[in-house]
Amino acid sequence: MKILVINGPNLNLLGRREPEVYGTMSFDDYYQELMQRFPEVEFSYVQSNHEGVIIDELHMAWGRVDGVVLNAGAYSHTSLAIADAIASIEVPVVEVHISNVFARESFRHHSMLSAVCAGVIVGFGLNSYALAVQSLIDRMKQ
Amino acid sequence: MKILVINGPNLNLLGRREPEVYGTMSFDDYYQELMQRFPEVEFSYVQSNHEGVIIDELHMAWGRVDGVVLNAGAYSHTSLAIADAIASIEVPVVEVHISNVFARESFRHHSMLSAVCAGVIVGFGLNSYALAVQSLIDRMKQ
Amino acid sequence: MKILVINGPNLNLLGRREPEVYGTMSFDDYYQELMQRFPEVEFSYVQSNHEGVIIDELHMAWGRVDGVVLNAGAYSHTSLAIADAIASIEVPVVEVHISNVFARESFRHHSMLSAVCAGVIVGFGLNSYALAVQSLIDRMKQ
Amino acid sequence: MKILVINGPNLNLLGRREPEVYGTMSFDDYYQELMQRFPEVEFSYVQSNHEGVIIDELHMAWGRVDGVVLNAGAYSHTSLAIADAIASIEVPVVEVHISNVFARESFRHHSMLSAVCAGVIVGFGLNSYALAVQSLIDRMKQ
Amino acid sequence: MKILVINGPNLNLLGRREPEVYGTMSFDDYYQELMQRFPEVEFSYVQSNHEGVIIDELHMAWGRVDGVVLNAGAYSHTSLAIADAIASIEVPVVEVHISNVFARESFRHHSMLSAVCAGVIVGFGLNSYALAVQSLIDRMKQ
Amino acid sequence: MKILVINGPNLNLLGRREPEVYGTMSFDDYYQELMQRFPEVEFSYVQSNHEGVIIDELHMAWGRVDGVVLNAGAYSHTSLAIADAIASIEVPVVEVHISNVFARESFRHHSMLSAVCAGVIVGFGLNSYALAVQSLIDRMKQ
Amino acid sequence: MKILVINGPNLNLLGRREPEVYGTMSFDDYYQELMQRFPEVEFSYVQSNHEGVIIDELHMAWGRVDGVVLNAGAYSHTSLAIADAIASIEVPVVEVHISNVFARESFRHHSMLSAVCAGVIVGFGLNSYALAVQSLIDRMKQ
Amino acid sequence: MKILVINGPNLNLLGRREPEVYGTMSFDDYYQELMQRFPEVEFSYVQSNHEGVIIDELHMAWGRVDGVVLNAGAYSHTSLAIADAIASIEVPVVEVHISNVFARESFRHHSMLSAVCAGVIVGFGLNSYALAVQSLIDRMKQ
Amino acid sequence: MKILVINGPNLNLLGRREPEVYGTMSFDDYYQELMQRFPEVEFSYVQSNHEGVIIDELHMAWGRVDGVVLNAGAYSHTSLAIADAIASIEVPVVEVHISNVFARESFRHHSMLSAVCAGVIVGFGLNSYALAVQSLIDRMKQ
Amino acid sequence: MKILVINGPNLNLLGRREPEVYGTMSFDDYYQELMQRFPEVEFSYVQSNHEGVIIDELHMAWGRVDGVVLNAGAYSHTSLAIADAIASIEVPVVEVHISNVFARESFRHHSMLSAVCAGVIVGFGLNSYALAVQSLIDRMKQ
Amino acid sequence: MKILVINGPNLNLLGRREPEVYGTMSFDDYYQELMQRFPEVEFSYVQSNHEGVIIDELHMAWGRVDGVVLNAGAYSHTSLAIADAIASIEVPVVEVHISNVFARESFRHHSMLSAVCAGVIVGFGLNSYALAVQSLIDRMKQ
Amino acid sequence: MKILVINGPNLNLLGRREPEVYGTMSFDDYYQELMQRFPEVEFSYVQSNHEGVIIDELHMAWGRVDGVVLNAGAYSHTSLAIADAIASIEVPVVEVHISNVFARESFRHHSMLSAVCAGVIVGFGLNSYALAVQSLIDRMKQ
Repeated sequence: MKILVINGPNLNLLGRREPEVYGTMSFDDYYQELMQRFPEVEFSYVQSNHEGVIIDELHMAWGRVDGVVLNAGAYSHTSLAIADAIASIEVPVVEVHISNVFARESFRHHSMLSAVCAGVIVGFGLNSYALAVQSLIDRMKQ
Repeated sequence: MKILVINGPNLNLLGRREPEVYGTMSFDDYYQELMQRFPEVEFSYVQSNHEGVIIDELHMAWGRVDGVVLNAGAYSHTSLAIADAIASIEVPVVEVHISNVFARESFRHHSMLSAVCAGVIVGFGLNSYALAVQSLIDRMKQ
Repeated sequence: MKILVINGPNLNLLGRREPEVYGTMSFDDYYQELMQRFPEVEFSYVQSNHEGVIIDELHMAWGRVDGVVLNAGAYSHTSLAIADAIASIEVPVVEVHISNVFARESFRHHSMLSAVCAGVIVGFGLNSYALAVQSLIDRMKQ
Repeated sequence: MKILVINGPNLNLLGRREPEVYGTMSFDDYYQELMQRFPEVEFSYVQSNHEGVIIDELHMAWGRVDGVVLNAGAYSHTSLAIADAIASIEVPVVEVHISNVFARESFRHHSMLSAVCAGVIVGFGLNSYALAVQSLIDRMKQ
Repeated sequence: MKILVINGPNLNLLGRREPEVYGTMSFDDYYQELMQRFPEVEFSYVQSNHEGVIIDELHMAWGRVDGVVLNAGAYSHTSLAIADAIASIEVPVVEVHISNVFARESFRHHSMLSAVCAGVIVGFGLNSYALAVQSLIDRMKQ
Repeated sequence: MKILVINGPNLNLLGRREPEVYGTMSFDDYYQELMQRFPEVEFSYVQSNHEGVIIDELHMAWGRVDGVVLNAGAYSHTSLAIADAIASIEVPVVEVHISNVFARESFRHHSMLSAVCAGVIVGFGLNSYALAVQSLIDRMKQ
Repeated sequence: MKILVINGPNLNLLGRREPEVYGTMSFDDYYQELMQRFPEVEFSYVQSNHEGVIIDELHMAWGRVDGVVLNAGAYSHTSLAIADAIASIEVPVVEVHISNVFARESFRHHSMLSAVCAGVIVGFGLNSYALAVQSLIDRMKQ
Repeated sequence: MKILVINGPNLNLLGRREPEVYGTMSFDDYYQELMQRFPEVEFSYVQSNHEGVIIDELHMAWGRVDGVVLNAGAYSHTSLAIADAIASIEVPVVEVHISNVFARESFRHHSMLSAVCAGVIVGFGLNSYALAVQSLIDRMKQ
Repeated sequence: MKILVINGPNLNLLGRREPEVYGTMSFDDYYQELMQRFPEVEFSYVQSNHEGVIIDELHMAWGRVDGVVLNAGAYSHTSLAIADAIASIEVPVVEVHISNVFARESFRHHSMLSAVCAGVIVGFGLNSYALAVQSLIDRMKQ
Repeated sequence: MKILVINGPNLNLLGRREPEVYGTMSFDDYYQELMQRFPEVEFSYVQSNHEGVIIDELHMAWGRVDGVVLNAGAYSHTSLAIADAIASIEVPVVEVHISNVFARESFRHHSMLSAVCAGVIVGFGLNSYALAVQSLIDRMKQ
Repeated sequence: MKILVINGPNLNLLGRREPEVYGTMSFDDYYQELMQRFPEVEFSYVQSNHEGVIIDELHMAWGRVDGVVLNAGAYSHTSLAIADAIASIEVPVVEVHISNVFARESFRHHSMLSAVCAGVIVGFGLNSYALAVQSLIDRMKQ
Repeated sequence: MKILVINGPNLNLLGRREPEVYGTMSFDDYYQELMQRFPEVEFSYVQSNHEGVIIDELHMAWGRVDGVVLNAGAYSHTSLAIADAIASIEVPVVEVHISNVFARESFRHHSMLSAVCAGVIVGFGLNSYALAVQSLIDRMKQ
């Protein structure tokens, strides 16, 4: 099973950035943990601060992976174009957020992506990614 | 580890009710599956159509279980009183929804509970409950 | 033909409560009139101030009566859970209001129930119930 | 007893127009049924696509009929002028809608007429007219 | 000097209609008073319940009268088409209202016509018309 | 007959201030014209940039003048306190505006004062004051 | 191929009315140009300031023409009744606007008709009509 | 003099729940203080997490007590049904809140109950109850 | 103990102004009652129609009195500057209203001051002031 | 005559993506048709999922082409930066949409680009591009 | 060069008031620093809690100073009258705020004054005043 | 001291683009002036039409410069991702705008960036950049 993890803007700063919100572990370190937890999955990973790159990556995922775990960061709340990309491709995309966006500023309460995703996982810290991977494995089995 | 699963209004009709939205499996059948998947967890379960009963149950959970999986159904969108109950008790509560509420009527897009929950899992069908249980186990381990 | 009449919160005070809005006849007295007007119908009746009880009653009606006449009182304007209950059961529910809610405070102009009811009858005083019963009989005949 | 039935814009196309919403019976055919069901009532009927004509007819009804059954179609949602006409005359006007407007587009959820009508009947198909006539007869008797 | 007075929907019922709001004098009687008060003005008068007729009359006024006094009734609050007609013609139009619309229902607080009128006079009872005529005479003199 | 004219903030700059909106005549010059046009009226005049002074003046007018012509300038759109003062005293107050406020920025479209005034006159340039005086004279005569 | 062109309120003043917005050519003159450009089309034309007439014309078009080019003027923004008429008939209707309504007042940004039209063409001056005719011809060919 | 104190949802947790907001004293302890402060009053007390129970209690209070002190907790902000119950009974109800709800989340700024209560007391900690009792005693004396 | 009572705009007219809303007792008379009821308190009193004076008085109160009872009248709903003054000084300010502002026009439902006051007392007539004084005494004792 | 066609995000998937909305023809195939239909036009074409690239292309078009046909896809509804680019350059830009965006989700009803475009063409399928090209040719001729 | 510095409500408390927001330096002390930094400028200074005084001062500045630095405090967010005063005079006014108002409560995000000021400087602490003075000097030089 | 100046979309066209709004000087020419005015500062400069590039640059600035002057152009009003980038890095960012955005279209009145910037400078033409640099120098000195 192949899963692509996509991280959006500012997530490259994880561990350095606002640690009281996002914690002190870098995503690279967490990614190692994730791969160890799910050895049966073939992972790939991309991070970009560019909306267009995220769209390009989603397009390329079509036909190449079995599922996408997407944390689009701030673009979750503003990008109709990414939402259209998710709706366009026939690959299940699970939306994740590290922090509980519903407990933060009101402009983070609404995600433009949720309606077209296969599911949404919010607020479990970095463990949100593992739960998303688990959900894709479960979905595959059904 | 002890986990209480609470189902809110109309979820007793699962399997009979709007099967195109909620599927054809009854919650009782799914509950068996859930217990088998997590044999290390001691589960308890309650369903009620009464907002007050859900609050009473949350209060009683304090000090008695290690985590709550809550699908408050329609009360998710209208009950500030349940939100206050979750905020009042010192037990992690994970909010789940079977269907992708963000892809349905706009009055289902906002949950009054999310901001005070330990995390939110939406749209994975009945598997949302299993993911929530998994998240509580992971949380326990950390 | 079996019809269940459900009255929601504060309607037990009918005749005593705000008579300039709701008139001076108690519902019990009107209920006698109603049964006399439609001798071919087997009526049952329940009143409750509890949202949960109304949901329970709607669930129990499924498979036991041919139609429901529902005056959910103030819950009409706030209860998504009752709306979900109506949508869940396969029994026609007719929504009634004694007063013309559209001519009162703006928070009474919108009913969360109307969209999922088989029809809506508003503003004919207690006669709204008789018209609702008539509508269910007509529907049965078609 | 004299009752005037007024149909507003596009209702002349009933039976031809969007049959999945409005059914396949023309209003002329239904009008025959209606007159047969209430032989004690002297009916008159007018249909117009002109807001001004509907106002003129309401004015002329004052002193000439005992009640009006009004389906103002789309003007229900936009015409303050018809609402003023209803409020101006001393004849009870019952508002009817064939389809359940509350289950359709949001701009059909609010009627400008309801607040000044003697009652509102929504969603019973063509039978809405018969229920409205019944309500006027009942009102007369009281 | 030639002035056209246009009355919109339901104003033909003046004196009969809601006398607590609009008084008991008919417009015909008031019109006599108005002509006597301003003998130097050549008046013409039209009333219609039809939005289209009011637009037609405004068009015809262009080049034929020196000013228009317009009480568009309920159309003041809903008719962008009349507003466009006023903006299209090169004749000053003074908007009048008999009652103080700002002290009534909120949907009467906004007039779509005011922005394109030469002035607005509200709430002086029938005397609003005389003040409007006076304003047109004063304007002429300047 | 005694009439008090009150001008609110920035109206002391009339003639100097934004002449393309308010014209080039100072209010002092216009006030002379006004007194000449209505020799039967005993005028008094006050201008203030202070909301509190306008309220004080309105209070003092009670029992001392027969009518007030009030151009509250920007306070028309923000001062609930002046509105309460107008409602408190038993003297008719006519609201005037020089420019057509409905054709300007949207925050000038709503006046908090209109609902409690005896009438409203908008957009006739300085002649708005004369029309307001005329309206008070007419009112007196009735 | 038969095409009906319908012009709504105030468009009879084209060429005279606000020439900085609508240009100086009358519609009659443009109509000659249009007919010359598309000699293969049999045109008919109607202009009315009456909402009801526009609805009547749309109804009559059903079965008699192959397409309608509609500039409903101000009614585009307020008439749900015309929208219902367009939805009711089985003739493609193309909505056109001479000026770029999106660059004008905000109340012109939303058309109630667009959702039920076969297409929308905005802002090309009178050439909008020619493009609409072209679109109907192209549609016919497919 | 008889006074009923009603506490709504989650107030049973007072002293344990969010002590930085609600303090550390349990309501039972405070209730003793309250009875000692007003020995001339015969108190009764009920707490419930059930909206329906609060309505039932209000109904039962009619004719049995001289005043009600009501802290409806979160139901203050969502329950039109409790508001209707207060309006229905002829017993003065004083609304109290322990914390200053106006200084908290915006969804706590509006109470559906205030408009139908005899008075509102907010933000004095537990002393709000004593002030409410005092207000009922004062009211009785007048 | 020293308490300053501040009354805002139009409250000087108490007893004369809209007696059906505010009663017929002047504040001077009530003030005598108030001083008699709390002989242990040293009262001072100021009334002003000027927002700036109220701010000046609040500033001067800092360090000179132990508490302020403030009825800011209409400024409660519009004055952010008074709210800032209250937040700036280290003296407890209790907000009072004579009438139940929540049962009046919607623009009186929101007070800009409440969030920064030590408590809010609404709707007990003039007795609201006594309750506010009582609350300050109680607060002092704690 | 030189025309640049710009396609925005996800339009590279045309023919594969949601064919029930966008049809089954790829844009490359359609582009051949377009060039054949207008042999007198020298076309160039670019597609990008990157907002910044679209802005860069618009800048580069200034002085190099005579007109732009722009389908900005989802960026039409969110990109103020593209709107500013269109306003900045002195090249006519025609906005096109394949589907009738006004008949889809409400967030597609508003385009940030329309106000600064030379015209807007919506809902004719791929033929929208041909109509846009035609409009630019017609414009050139005038 | 002459510059007038105007401080609005509550700014007299600077240094004492909410030091965590506004710092601990009094404005008098800062004013000395400011004069030392710009010896070439002739400064004058006024502080008032009265909206009317601020307007009076702005009027008096016209023709007497070359620029105004205005911190209108809370009146920035509520005073249309001060905005009109700024627009009325022909003196450049630079708006300053000490704290970053955009990072505080939402009612501080919008200033009614900004649109008519020569520029806006926000959030640099007391240094905002120096930057404003610098901007006026730079403007003078151009 | 090192300062990075970042210009966002369309600012490369400065001097060519809408000169009545932005003036006729190119940014390159102004940049020379800026460097001459502050010889003690080591400047670097980047302009991009790509949101992602602006984020990348902000990230790279962390640890490399002492302050950033950012004119994000249209992205100021739409980019939550840039706002998150500013909040993520520990470098002071000063937001500048050339034109007075508060005096332009309403969608330019709100900046998503302001709340997380070290200060905001708006409307001084190109001099806004110099003031921002000055503010960073002053900040450094403190």
